[in-house]
Amino acid sequence: MDQEYRLTSPPMTLPQVSRYVDGSTIDFIREEALERERNNVLRAQIGVRGLLLPWFDAARMWLIVILTGIGVGLTGGWLDVLVKWLGDLREGRCSNGLFYNQVTCCSSVKPGELCGEWMTWSAFLDLRNVFAQSLLHSSVYVALAVSFAGAAAILVTTYAPYAFHTGIPEIKAILGGYVLTAFLTPWTLLIKALGLALAVASGLSLGKEGPLVHVACCFCYMLLNLLHFRNSEVQKRKLLAAAAAAGVSVAFGSPLGGVLFGLEELDVFANESEVMWRGFVASAIAAVALQWVDPFGTSKLVLFQVTNGSDTWRAFELIPWLTLGVIGGVLGSILIRINVKVALYRRRSVLNDWPVLEVIGVSAITAATSYLIVFSRVQASELVANLFQECDPTKIDYHGLCNPTAMWENVFLLLLTAALKVLLTAWTFGMMIPSGIFLPTIAIGACLGRAMGLLVQAIHRAYPMAWIFQSCPPELTKRCISPGFYSVIGASAMLGGVTRMTISLVVILFELTGALSHVLPIMVSVMTAKWIGDALGKDGGIYAAWIAMKAYPWLPPVNYQDKKPDLGAQLMRRLNRLILIHDRGETIEKLAALLDKYDYHSFPVVREQEFLGLITRDKLRSALVDDSSNRTRECVFSISDIPGPNAFLDLSGLLEEAVLQLRPEVPKEFVVNMFQKFNLRQIVFTSRGRLIGMTTRRDVVTLLTCQFAHSGALAQERRSWD
Amino acid sequence: MDQEYRLTSPPMTLPQVSRYVDGSTIDFIREEALERERNNVLRAQIGVRGLLLPWFDAARMWLIVILTGIGVGLTGGWLDVLVKWLGDLREGRCSNGLFYNQVTCCSSVKPGELCGEWMTWSAFLDLRNVFAQSLLHSSVYVALAVSFAGAAAILVTTYAPYAFHTGIPEIKAILGGYVLTAFLTPWTLLIKALGLALAVASGLSLGKEGPLVHVACCFCYMLLNLLHFRNSEVQKRKLLAAAAAAGVSVAFGSPLGGVLFGLEELDVFANESEVMWRGFVASAIAAVALQWVDPFGTSKLVLFQVTNGSDTWRAFELIPWLTLGVIGGVLGSILIRINVKVALYRRRSVLNDWPVLEVIGVSAITAATSYLIVFSRVQASELVANLFQECDPTKIDYHGLCNPTAMWENVFLLLLTAALKVLLTAWTFGMMIPSGIFLPTIAIGACLGRAMGLLVQAIHRAYPMAWIFQSCPPELTKRCISPGFYSVIGASAMLGGVTRMTISLVVILFELTGALSHVLPIMVSVMTAKWIGDALGKDGGIYAAWIAMKAYPWLPPVNYQDKKPDLGAQLMRRLNRLILIHDRGETIEKLAALLDKYDYHSFPVVREQEFLGLITRDKLRSALVDDSSNRTRECVFSISDIPGPNAFLDLSGLLEEAVLQLRPEVPKEFVVNMFQKFNLRQIVFTSRGRLIGMTTRRDVVTLLTCQFAHSGALAQERRSWD
Repeated sequence: MDQEYRLTSPPMTLPQVSRYVDGSTIDFIREEALERERNNVLRAQIGVRGLLLPWFDAARMWLIVILTGIGVGLTGGWLDVLVKWLGDLREGRCSNGLFYNQVTCCSSVKPGELCGEWMTWSAFLDLRNVFAQSLLHSSVYVALAVSFAGAAAILVTTYAPYAFHTGIPEIKAILGGYVLTAFLTPWTLLIKALGLALAVASGLSLGKEGPLVHVACCFCYMLLNLLHFRNSEVQKRKLLAAAAAAGVSVAFGSPLGGVLFGLEELDVFANESEVMWRGFVASAIAAVALQWVDPFGTSKLVLFQVTNGSDTWRAFELIPWLTLGVIGGVLGSILIRINVKVALYRRRSVLNDWPVLEVIGVSAITAATSYLIVFSRVQASELVANLFQECDPTKIDYHGLCNPTAMWENVFLLLLTAALKVLLTAWTFGMMIPSGIFLPTIAIGACLGRAMGLLVQAIHRAYPMAWIFQSCPPELTKRCISPGFYSVIGASAMLGGVTRMTISLVVILFELTGALSHVLPIMVSVMTAKWIGDALGKDGGIYAAWIAMKAYPWLPPVNYQDKKPDLGAQLMRRLNRLILIHDRGETIEKLAALLDKYDYHSFPVVREQEFLGLITRDKLRSALVDDSSNRTRECVFSISDIPGPNAFLDLSGLLEEAVLQLRPEVPKEFVVNMFQKFNLRQIVFTSRGRLIGMTTRRDVVTLLTCQFAHSGALAQERRSWD
Repeated sequence: MDQEYRLTSPPMTLPQVSRYVDGSTIDFIREEALERERNNVLRAQIGVRGLLLPWFDAARMWLIVILTGIGVGLTGGWLDVLVKWLGDLREGRCSNGLFYNQVTCCSSVKPGELCGEWMTWSAFLDLRNVFAQSLLHSSVYVALAVSFAGAAAILVTTYAPYAFHTGIPEIKAILGGYVLTAFLTPWTLLIKALGLALAVASGLSLGKEGPLVHVACCFCYMLLNLLHFRNSEVQKRKLLAAAAAAGVSVAFGSPLGGVLFGLEELDVFANESEVMWRGFVASAIAAVALQWVDPFGTSKLVLFQVTNGSDTWRAFELIPWLTLGVIGGVLGSILIRINVKVALYRRRSVLNDWPVLEVIGVSAITAATSYLIVFSRVQASELVANLFQECDPTKIDYHGLCNPTAMWENVFLLLLTAALKVLLTAWTFGMMIPSGIFLPTIAIGACLGRAMGLLVQAIHRAYPMAWIFQSCPPELTKRCISPGFYSVIGASAMLGGVTRMTISLVVILFELTGALSHVLPIMVSVMTAKWIGDALGKDGGIYAAWIAMKAYPWLPPVNYQDKKPDLGAQLMRRLNRLILIHDRGETIEKLAALLDKYDYHSFPVVREQEFLGLITRDKLRSALVDDSSNRTRECVFSISDIPGPNAFLDLSGLLEEAVLQLRPEVPKEFVVNMFQKFNLRQIVFTSRGRLIGMTTRRDVVTLLTCQFAHSGALAQERRSWD
């Protein structure tokens, strides 16, 4: 019994970095073991090398974090400049030169003066006829929109198919261990950045936030390769997580929001404050770099600065805000459903073969309908900024929103814009162009919220003495309700309904509004929307829905609770469904045939029923290739009693050592929890040393995504990740 | 083989809440299983009850979160008011009534006018002689300080010994599973709050931040008992974590900082965004409640509002800031060492028997020395607020800090204050009064930083044309260096050196200064201080040092890395060091004797060498007590082959099912990681079904704290937590 366990002496060469093919999943436990081995080798070097090499390793890691921050900040800033220029080009051009946008073109003009340098297309072409002017404007508007969108679609379909969509589902899967190198190439980076600028400028109903996270990750991955970062896949993922935080930081101008997004949505910083710290460093640097570029010429990071009409809010306002929360939850759930339906239809119909034409068609429809409705003619970001503004007599009244006599027209137009944007967004999100869901969602919510604010304001104006408005001081009859803040609440509710994020969303909107007193209403609306949305659909938010449709091996960080108190054994594959390798009796030939027949990632090795260990596919294959001399030689996996060294091929060194074994009696929830916390690839169930069964990550993913109806509907091919 | 595992049908009565005695550790896996069982029972109720009972459960939980937030905010606000009144009483009194503090007393006076209502003690007693005045002032100052401090010490020693110190080490241990009910009683709450006000007002070198976290947890625990919250110990701890976040939120006026403090320092929100969300709700509500009390009459949450002299900083300033980081790391490490030495001396010397006298003596010394030095005469919070201010010709020049001719005097006085405060703080932190370490640390750092700022400013004034100052624009000769911001940097560095926190510290200071552009310098200084501090000592920060000295069973969230690639087997106790229970051959008498002899928490049950399961002490004891009829009856643990039901006492139902078994070959780091992530109580090592050994939490805690020399030096008694 009480036997001594031999310690393996540290090897003096760096361990081989494991290679994974696209579509597989990394083994976190094995990768962490490799990382430990690597660190030990570095530290064990003699003399100064032993001190310097680990230091160089750490310095390279920090260099990547810092360069990623700077790069993402600069990229984000210049993308904003590019989008602004392309967007302005749809309305006119600068007489000083084509490459000035409206703001830089008019920068020399003093405030109050008219800017003569900036000319609409009709003025530039000297058209006088009003009808011709209007025709020219609308056709340039639509034509440029279509050509921008078409160019983006051509770029994406031709050069980098992975540059389509938001990228966040893939990043979530990659950070969870999925291997998808094609998703992070420099080529994808270039196409995604360029295509994103074109797509945003085309006026399609999409945002830049999600794709910027993808761009940040591509940038970081490029640095990893450039600087010969040879650490384990786990370390790479930790750096990618920091890059993702920097991406959010730049997208919203909110460095804390970036860190918390990484924490909540990407679920990467769990228990590792060092990783979180790196994310914080990267996102703070990115924000500073963005501020340095100053793309909006305002020295402000945030596009949607909120001017607070009144610093306080009244309790009765919770009623409209809760209503907004409910609307956000319902509409968010509807948006997700339409989006899923459209994605399925796109895959199954003729659209699948003509992605560029689809983009062109949708952009033409978007441009045409948007041109007709005043609110949607400007870019979505401008619309949102205007909707968030309070009415201020000293400032320009955008779109006549502050005109109390036009209240019903405004409400109607706002609701129409919201409805239109729901449909357009649901269709656009998933086409072959880079597209984020955040900004359109914010725009829809801001429209709804502003409409609600206008309604409440109108009621208050009509019945200022009603008991419900008693808390409004009489001198503030006009300022008691702030429709601009209702917009913010609407946007929060809609975002909560679509993404089902909570804390990071609140922080992002908190950094936007800056008023601590308004955090509570934002929290309430986000929470209500999330509850309603979760109650209405089992999708778990739009990202989880796409992950499930794409069948990525991603473990949702849900708190899995079983209906019945089941055992872990319920989840396992029994012996008769496993492909076993027996300690004796297998020849090289038989094992090679086994490898060809089954593409499982690893095989349990048993002697009779006793569990000896797991052997992975790639280790077994390389051992067989190395020693293919005599294909009928017998293989053994336990070295205890081999008669002669040459009679058998000794494969005992290939068994994985750190395999987690559980008894089948542990609760099912514990098994799921185990997979989630350790990102495991498999758990082996043994009872008194005998193999009972095995559970793989795929089983757990299937269990956790089974409530969503369309799981795997968009999967490309059969993934070999178990 | 492939046998069927029976499913236990859900019981229809709520499971018994497990009871733990003070000093033990909860079993997270078992508690979570109980919680699952409880939820299943609630949901399985028939009809409306099945819907309403889970809802009531959730509603009660949220009610506790919200009430905790409100209660902590109000308590914090009123404590501030009380401290202000007590503090002002040391200098004079209001002629309108004793219970007005200086601000409320003078609230009717218009700005610019002199406040006649507030009278110093000499004016009140109508003393004219200057010498008598000075004598009166200093003696009232010292006498009140001593009596406040003495009163606090008497309250603490007499009524609630656990109300002493900061409380954060204990809260960290409790949230990690330690059971210490006496720490959270309403009595402790009352004494800690009162004693805290008295201690802060006495002018001792301590702060209110840590104790406020303790007060928040006591408040939450009181609510848990009042509302009959009968959920598992794990759920209670999750709510306590939210309360702790609310406490930090109130202490610093920084709700985000509170959440991140919980995340980083208390390490409680790992992987559970719902828990984090509760913490966010509680801390936001607490901040709003504090704002409503408005203790400082400024409508601002933050005491140390920073006025930014210049919005930008220059690269050369990184040199003094890095220097401050190094100083902060070194001084923080020294402070911790002195504090540990003092704590050990206090325990071993005569001071142990006279805690009240010690407090009185130290407070007399503190008051006397502080009265002599102008910077330390005011309360530390006021000093810090003044040091953080930039020099502004339109405002009052506090203490002549902005007088350039008195530069050397100022630097000398600041350094003297810092040195004095280091010694006083190191002694005070650990006496029998409520005392936090944050504020004194900030004060020390602010003094050092301001001194550094003054020095750099003087150099810049002397050599404005030196190449290093080239980046300073010539028109800003006076404003290029902002000594106030150097103060902030000094405070960050000192905090980093003492607490070794990173991200939550930066966020708290970020919410303090509000300027994104200054986040980078704060990050750099905190990081440098942490690196230097970690390099100088193995203590892991002052809280970790106290936890180790008190020998609380707390697993540090460090990323454990082994020197050599050891196996998990290295960490286990071998069979010969375990107390085993054998399946056959044990009688009730023998087992009862075993329980009396060994106070281990659980015992492995084996048949020959085959591992059957674990049985916990309390289950075994209650089973034996229930059935003490025939003390020579034999006990069996496996029901498979019992000849007759009466011949044996069947204890097979008592075996714990969810016991984690590992093979001894798994890496040691994996075992440690497992304990950290799951907060395990024990891991059983088996090989092919045979018991090889066992590792308990104590073994892992010992492993992780062994590098600190004074582990267990302050432990009260032998803890029975393994």
